[in-house]
Amino acid sequence: MPVDAPTVAAALADVLPAEALVTNADSMQAYRWDRANDPGAGEPAVVVRARSTADVQAAVTVAARLGVPVVPRGAGSGLSGGSSAVDGCVVVSLDRMRDIEVDPVTRVAVAQPGAFNAEVKMAAAAHGLWYPPDPSSYEFCSIGGNVATNAGGLCCVKYGVTTDYVLGMTVVLADGRAVRLGGPRLKDVAGLSLTKLFVGSEGTLGVVTEVVLRLVPAQRTPSTLVATFPTLAGATDAVLATSRTLRPSMLEFMDRVSVNAVEDETRMGLDRDAAAMLIVQSDEPEAAGAAEIAAIEGLCLEHGASECYTTSDPDEGEAFVVARRMAIPAVETKGRLLLEDVGVPLPRLGDLVLGIERIAAEADTTIALIAHAGDGNTHPLVVVDPTDEDQQRRAEVAYGRVMDLAIELGGTITGEHGVGRLKRPWLEDYLGPDVLELNQRIKDALDPQNILNPGAVLGARQETR
Amino acid sequence: MPVDAPTVAAALADVLPAEALVTNADSMQAYRWDRANDPGAGEPAVVVRARSTADVQAAVTVAARLGVPVVPRGAGSGLSGGSSAVDGCVVVSLDRMRDIEVDPVTRVAVAQPGAFNAEVKMAAAAHGLWYPPDPSSYEFCSIGGNVATNAGGLCCVKYGVTTDYVLGMTVVLADGRAVRLGGPRLKDVAGLSLTKLFVGSEGTLGVVTEVVLRLVPAQRTPSTLVATFPTLAGATDAVLATSRTLRPSMLEFMDRVSVNAVEDETRMGLDRDAAAMLIVQSDEPEAAGAAEIAAIEGLCLEHGASECYTTSDPDEGEAFVVARRMAIPAVETKGRLLLEDVGVPLPRLGDLVLGIERIAAEADTTIALIAHAGDGNTHPLVVVDPTDEDQQRRAEVAYGRVMDLAIELGGTITGEHGVGRLKRPWLEDYLGPDVLELNQRIKDALDPQNILNPGAVLGARQETR
Repeated sequence: MPVDAPTVAAALADVLPAEALVTNADSMQAYRWDRANDPGAGEPAVVVRARSTADVQAAVTVAARLGVPVVPRGAGSGLSGGSSAVDGCVVVSLDRMRDIEVDPVTRVAVAQPGAFNAEVKMAAAAHGLWYPPDPSSYEFCSIGGNVATNAGGLCCVKYGVTTDYVLGMTVVLADGRAVRLGGPRLKDVAGLSLTKLFVGSEGTLGVVTEVVLRLVPAQRTPSTLVATFPTLAGATDAVLATSRTLRPSMLEFMDRVSVNAVEDETRMGLDRDAAAMLIVQSDEPEAAGAAEIAAIEGLCLEHGASECYTTSDPDEGEAFVVARRMAIPAVETKGRLLLEDVGVPLPRLGDLVLGIERIAAEADTTIALIAHAGDGNTHPLVVVDPTDEDQQRRAEVAYGRVMDLAIELGGTITGEHGVGRLKRPWLEDYLGPDVLELNQRIKDALDPQNILNPGAVLGARQETR
Repeated sequence: MPVDAPTVAAALADVLPAEALVTNADSMQAYRWDRANDPGAGEPAVVVRARSTADVQAAVTVAARLGVPVVPRGAGSGLSGGSSAVDGCVVVSLDRMRDIEVDPVTRVAVAQPGAFNAEVKMAAAAHGLWYPPDPSSYEFCSIGGNVATNAGGLCCVKYGVTTDYVLGMTVVLADGRAVRLGGPRLKDVAGLSLTKLFVGSEGTLGVVTEVVLRLVPAQRTPSTLVATFPTLAGATDAVLATSRTLRPSMLEFMDRVSVNAVEDETRMGLDRDAAAMLIVQSDEPEAAGAAEIAAIEGLCLEHGASECYTTSDPDEGEAFVVARRMAIPAVETKGRLLLEDVGVPLPRLGDLVLGIERIAAEADTTIALIAHAGDGNTHPLVVVDPTDEDQQRRAEVAYGRVMDLAIELGGTITGEHGVGRLKRPWLEDYLGPDVLELNQRIKDALDPQNILNPGAVLGARQETR
């Protein structure tokens, strides 16, 4: 029998200060959803705003004793419903745990999970160091959420993803114990790679309360190329030609819909008629950077680019990157979005991009397409008109078809956003039953009661497909 | 009751061709040990020389049915006894599975586990690409062994370790099923990070039969600095000063004993009187590389270097790197070695190096010290005279004390060689009981019969400490 909210609140009040608990139904609304706006989000029993690992331990210990679900959340910027509340759950919010300490000799940052990605970057920069992973949401996403989803970003094509920078962590387990995994050492192979297992586990194996992050020397000032193409295929061919021989520090793609949505907001003079635009950066040292950009410009022209613009001015370059980063909010002004995150092996990028165009036409639905093209990771943004039920249905069909196409092309249903709850129904199609069962065995071993973020990634929750 | 060898051999003969099986006791001797020469290595029942994933599946399926241990092995270059045979086991040798395919567009190599690290590097180089991880043994260690131990090497200080390059794999599970994890995609967060969990699991969770490896563009020709120091502390201080602001592509350390052992073999004119020598490389583009090397030379002189020699000639630079790489075999000519692999957070490097000197003196034992100094990973080589029982006992005490010291300094008992069987008795001291139990839960979930490399990392085998 489910435990009622007052019982949960009373048990938590015994072990946590009153100011750490949110029990008012209105105040709890802000903790029900992440940016995916999951329509199936439940009503929490209590929200715990933790200030320390000990607070998280107290909350999880009580939840474990009562058999109540725990939904951890950071800044609520998730795009797959990984932080949707579950009915009767304890939401453990890490938004108050934001300390960051940088050790410049060891070149690590020790951060609490609620710190924003941008704050970690700033703390590193104060020592001439750099934390590379850069989700487009870096100014308002938390580092804990980044770890939970193994977040990517724009520089990953050259610098890798979050897991490549996580050296250690403190994590609260399903029974309330806290353990330290790894630490401030580049190399450590003593025991299983548990640190890496927890990265990307979306709060289903434990609640991360501290991370040790590898930092690298400050990035060099990049040179920038913007190239527009009259055809989608021209742009994706140029991406492949570039990746075959060069290694830009950014290789981003925007289609006509997203370019126009951004131009509507910015009036910065982007080419509204182009089928696609690439934004490319090189951070090689000066002459080498200019040479790399020139070489990529040559490849773009060879593949039919209608216009190429290069600049070594960092502010001018950053303006184009900002344009790319604001694509999601810009397209969001056109309707509610179903956010995709499919990725394919790079040679299939053209098939994916053209296939998405076809799916949009067939479903008579707008799909804006942006992509971290250099690593084959795309974000089709399916635009939903919530006032039009038939269109909504068609958009949902298109959303699923994009994932089916990615799987067919040897790709993944999520490159960097996580499975959360919204992509859960497609996980078995992607992984197959054996690998899914392997996931479940790990989950069962570490969270036998299934109290940690149930229904995210692996689901007790009813399939909705 | 243990199953006898003829029964195991007969069962394997039913499902594998005769030429895949080695059953002759003499012929099997070569498969009992790795380079750690574990005195406790057992006698296998049968050796299977697999040619395919299907062969491995057949062998594991039989072993699972009979409840017989499976010990996987690659090139047998392991330094911690991870491939020591267990009495009555099936050794699954991957030495015949050596195919490598490179896709230059996706920038991945798909390699079978028996391929040597050097062969993967060569296959990549044929396409202008590079597989960075470079254990000193790269010419005779297998890529499967590298994955099993999450191997490091010399370039890791800048380019990371094996796990940073493993995108996917095929692995045979404890029940004989084969699954594919991950794939040729830089970003994939669909489901738990199982690929990364299997990296470094030393054959205890499954047998890896294929790996998908990320490649990067060819490394630039490096510039080299060799600096000698009259004191150990001067050398480690120079390492810290360098790491605070610069990012060399190699930052290696050798002490007097190892310099002299190498000089005995090479007569290349190394300074026999120096307390320590650093070998440093920068692979930044030309002017930037020379500038980085000049800056590090300045820091070395500031910290008391007695001599600095720089060269941009790649062959001359490589000669010093070869000297560093041959340190283990050179010291090995002085006696049997107990190979250490302890690592500390970089600021504690000096304490570790001076502490090891003290331990050697107290135990009246020679310990040669080489180190991937830039990432705090050291290889104390405890020299054992097998004809002197008392010295052997003192060497073993020193071996353990070095690990105790590393733990005390917040370090790890193994940075890149793996726990295997020889470091197993120290694992709990390092991990603590909670994390050890977490390891065991994962192991139990994936290998409930404990047939996969039992006694390595986690042990059914009797503690020997």
